[in-house]
Amino acid sequence: MEIFFSSDVSGNTLRLSPEESKHCVKVLRRRSGDSIEVIDGSGTLYRCVITLDNPAGVEALISETIPDWGTHPYKLTMAVCPTKNPDRYEWFAEKATEFGVDCIVPVIGERSERRVFKTDRLRRVVLSAVKQSLKGAVPEVAEPVSVKEFIASCQASCRLIAYCFDDASTPRRSITEVLSGNDIAVLIGPEGDFSPEEARMAIAAGFVPIHLGESRLRTETAAIAAVAAVYFHHI
Amino acid sequence: MEIFFSSDVSGNTLRLSPEESKHCVKVLRRRSGDSIEVIDGSGTLYRCVITLDNPAGVEALISETIPDWGTHPYKLTMAVCPTKNPDRYEWFAEKATEFGVDCIVPVIGERSERRVFKTDRLRRVVLSAVKQSLKGAVPEVAEPVSVKEFIASCQASCRLIAYCFDDASTPRRSITEVLSGNDIAVLIGPEGDFSPEEARMAIAAGFVPIHLGESRLRTETAAIAAVAAVYFHHI
Repeated sequence: MEIFFSSDVSGNTLRLSPEESKHCVKVLRRRSGDSIEVIDGSGTLYRCVITLDNPAGVEALISETIPDWGTHPYKLTMAVCPTKNPDRYEWFAEKATEFGVDCIVPVIGERSERRVFKTDRLRRVVLSAVKQSLKGAVPEVAEPVSVKEFIASCQASCRLIAYCFDDASTPRRSITEVLSGNDIAVLIGPEGDFSPEEARMAIAAGFVPIHLGESRLRTETAAIAAVAAVYFHHI
Repeated sequence: MEIFFSSDVSGNTLRLSPEESKHCVKVLRRRSGDSIEVIDGSGTLYRCVITLDNPAGVEALISETIPDWGTHPYKLTMAVCPTKNPDRYEWFAEKATEFGVDCIVPVIGERSERRVFKTDRLRRVVLSAVKQSLKGAVPEVAEPVSVKEFIASCQASCRLIAYCFDDASTPRRSITEVLSGNDIAVLIGPEGDFSPEEARMAIAAGFVPIHLGESRLRTETAAIAAVAAVYFHHI
C-alpha cells in the first residue's frame, strides 16, 4: 500500500506536490482513472481517483474521507538532545513515528556537544515513516530550542525528565510508575547529561524526574524506550 | 569507560585477543602498570593491571572480580526473521543488547525474502554494544534456523509469537497482558508474515499469539518493541 501526501486539499479535489506527483506518475506509473490514497498530514486519509496524471502536479477527485486514520490515543512530545551522529537521531525519529509521536523537539542542552541541527532532513525521514507505517498525521518536527526554553514553554499535563546524575535529594521513579493522562512530554538529555541548573529548572517547572531502568542506554535508545513505554501504557 | 573483552582467563591472569590488544596498546595507548576493565562475555567484569603491553597479546593481572555485572533479571531469546536491509537487523541487535537480551536467533520463515544471513558481522555489532552499554555478558548470536526448527526446539517457559494475519479462531492478546516469568522467547516474523502452517505449528507448541498494539511496525521495530516490553515488565 503506497500512500501519498498532499497539503493542497480543496473541496472534493486535491493536488500532489511536484515531488509526490513525479513519484506517482514516473516511478509508480499511476494514470488518470487509477485509485490512490492520500494523507493530508493532519490525520485524514482520502481515497481518490486520479483526474490529471501530470508528473508536475497530479490532481485527484476525493471519493472517501477517513478522519483520524492510523491515530494513537495520546499526545506525545519528545524533546531530545541531538546525538553526535545524526543517523542515530534520524533512526529515533523513524521509530518514534512508527510507534506514535506527535512532536519531536531537538533541544540543545548546556552540555550538548552538537549544537546545530538540520530539521529539513529529519522532516523527510518522518514523512517517509508516516507513509510506511500507514499513519494519517505527520508528527511535527520543531525547530531546535534550548533545554531551558523547552522547559519554560512545555504545556503537557504529564511532564517527565530522564536524567542520569545521582542526586539523592531528587530521587527518580520508573517511567512506568509515573505515566499518567494522555498529554505527555518527555525530555531526554545529551550524552553528558543535563546541567544541574537545567535539572533544577525542570523540577521547579513540574517535570517529574524519571529513570528508564538499570540499563545504560544511548540517547536515542533512551528516547525510543520512553516512546515505547508510553505506547505500551496505552494499549 | 572503555571495556575490553577476553575469552582467555586463567587463575588471576588474563590475555586479550590480538584485535583487542592492538586496540588497547596502539589506539588507547595503555601501558604496563595501567588499570583496565575486562569482561569475559559470560557476565563477569575483571578489574586488572596490565603486566605485558604487547600489541599482539596484552596480559593483565586480575585485582578484582565482579560477577553478574550489568545483568538483567530475565532470560530473553529473540527469534527474528532477517530484514531485507541488513542494517536494520544490526540496529535491532544493537538496541536489544542495550536493553538486555540473551540470545538472538535469525529465523528463516517460509515467506522470508532474505534466506541467507551472516552472523559474523552481527556478533561484532553485539560485542560493540555490550562494551558501550557496560554489560558483562555477551548475548549469543545463534546460527540461522528455520522458523519450524526454532519452534520445535524452543524451551522457554513463556513462548510468544507476534503475527499479523487476521484469523478469528486464534485471537491475539497484547504482549503486555501475557508476559510471565523470567524465561521468555519471542518469535517475530518476516515482512510477509508467517505462513499459516508455521503459525499453527507455533500455537500447537504452546506459543501464545500476541500483538504489539495498533501501530504497523516494521520487523525490526516490532522486535525492539517486544524487547522493550519485556524490559519494562521487569523494572
